[in-house]
Amino acid sequence: MKALRVEKKKLAVREIEKPVRGEEALVRVLLSGICNTDLEIARGYAGFKGTIGHEFVGVVEEASERSMLGQRVVGEINAGCGECELCKAGDPRHCRNRTVLGIVGRDGAHAEFLRLPLQNLKPVPDKVVDEHAVFTEPLAAACGILECVTIRSTDRIAVIGDGKLGLLCAQVLALSGAAVLLIGKHADKLRVAERRGIETATVKSVAKRTCEFDVVVEASGSPSGFAGALELLRPRGVLVLKSTFQGVGTAEFDRTRLVVDEITILGSRCGRFQPALDLLKKGAIDIDSLISEEYPLARGVHAMERAGRKGVMKVFLRP
Amino acid sequence: MKALRVEKKKLAVREIEKPVRGEEALVRVLLSGICNTDLEIARGYAGFKGTIGHEFVGVVEEASERSMLGQRVVGEINAGCGECELCKAGDPRHCRNRTVLGIVGRDGAHAEFLRLPLQNLKPVPDKVVDEHAVFTEPLAAACGILECVTIRSTDRIAVIGDGKLGLLCAQVLALSGAAVLLIGKHADKLRVAERRGIETATVKSVAKRTCEFDVVVEASGSPSGFAGALELLRPRGVLVLKSTFQGVGTAEFDRTRLVVDEITILGSRCGRFQPALDLLKKGAIDIDSLISEEYPLARGVHAMERAGRKGVMKVFLRP
Repeated sequence: MKALRVEKKKLAVREIEKPVRGEEALVRVLLSGICNTDLEIARGYAGFKGTIGHEFVGVVEEASERSMLGQRVVGEINAGCGECELCKAGDPRHCRNRTVLGIVGRDGAHAEFLRLPLQNLKPVPDKVVDEHAVFTEPLAAACGILECVTIRSTDRIAVIGDGKLGLLCAQVLALSGAAVLLIGKHADKLRVAERRGIETATVKSVAKRTCEFDVVVEASGSPSGFAGALELLRPRGVLVLKSTFQGVGTAEFDRTRLVVDEITILGSRCGRFQPALDLLKKGAIDIDSLISEEYPLARGVHAMERAGRKGVMKVFLRP
Repeated sequence: MKALRVEKKKLAVREIEKPVRGEEALVRVLLSGICNTDLEIARGYAGFKGTIGHEFVGVVEEASERSMLGQRVVGEINAGCGECELCKAGDPRHCRNRTVLGIVGRDGAHAEFLRLPLQNLKPVPDKVVDEHAVFTEPLAAACGILECVTIRSTDRIAVIGDGKLGLLCAQVLALSGAAVLLIGKHADKLRVAERRGIETATVKSVAKRTCEFDVVVEASGSPSGFAGALELLRPRGVLVLKSTFQGVGTAEFDRTRLVVDEITILGSRCGRFQPALDLLKKGAIDIDSLISEEYPLARGVHAMERAGRKGVMKVFLRP
């Protein structure tokens, strides 16, 4: 089968063996989405070698549970050991021996087939088209903010970054009834949020609004975003960090302000899939505005190059 | 009256006017303690000019409430505007217009007299001697950790820094029943904790114990402590930052780890006084081992120099 792989720091579509399901389930991929993390991995992030990709929708072809055969599914990307306390409590996202689809020790979704544990697979409601279902994983990551921060409808929230993740976070948080300001650099992307009634601002114009926000979400992926995000927070405010990027960063920031103003910083990565699927089913999130282009899997290298271009949003691969 | 003042970046004991109480209370200082923050202020931290010092015990000499006259007291250091929401809710610690005793816009405690709002003053139980009462403020700061983190008796906690603050934090946290490890560089200081049954380790020996702790408290005051503290935390662990120091710091740390391992960072400054007074009354904390020297206020400059020396713990000033 075809698969988009990172091998010896080189990205290429290769012919490899179709995976054997073992005790897991085999999924035929219908459509996959290129995430910024894929671009980071191609640059060396996480030291991953193998098939990349972790956003997909597919059909179950082989599984021990017959009722799942033929089912259209998306898949949670963390596969735990099944033995540790975290796994037994039903949350393998921090299992120390976990593999992560297309990121850590497990071939990913930019391929004709993939395998995942059966319990990772979630049926997709019929109403949700493939192009929207592929967004379940990043939308779950946005919903994950609500797993770690209690948002009140009176809160003032700033989301930094008008990329796909920032636009998803802003939309999810706005549903809470809180006042959300999306801060970005691109008028066309900010307009996506504006059409949903979300206030927007450019990075420059927001510089004077220090100490104003109860919650700031850093989703820009920019190394400089950290210090700027801190400045926007009120005393005892909460900074949520969503972006991962390659390498150890040097961040210049006012550590004393963290202490004096008793700021909380929360790292937030993956979220549970069900809240995201519920939002997609309701049509509560504008997904169409986040889709740019689609390529056949065979053109995966070109698609990755396109996904890295400024102004390009989600790029799909179709096996 | 005599007062130890920072003026034009110069530290000196000067003769100044005795404060007029206005609508506040006038306190005759019996004993004050030199905090590392005083040393930082003398180096320029917080841009403060005036009488320094914020740890004290004294006697109320003038106040609108007669029952307080002659009362031995300690004093919470944040004085709010009294008008904003925070102040009305009884917590002026983050009032935007607050003054802070000897730190922000308000003359401090290394003086013969000071003034503070009456509601800031807390009577000292008779059982608590002056030398212990002076520790109410830093002990409250240690207790403040429990205002922002829920500690379970099964938690593994590391406290980094064997100075006064670290030793207070380790002792307070050990009372919760959790396993506390104090990490420091000085065998004699670590022994203070060991005598209370607290496990200790040197900075070097702990380097291999990564990802082990549920909660790490950074109380070393060292700019490099931040990255080291992060490495000790388990996924979804909590880092509590207690140290303030002068200037904007450059910290090199793995920001991606914050996100991937969903770490929480909490800045923590002042705590409420009552829990600290309760602990002092019970004799639950070894304070005596934290006291090094005492000088008359007139020798305040020398005392500050002594307090900055390696191995010297709390230095008192007696007006």
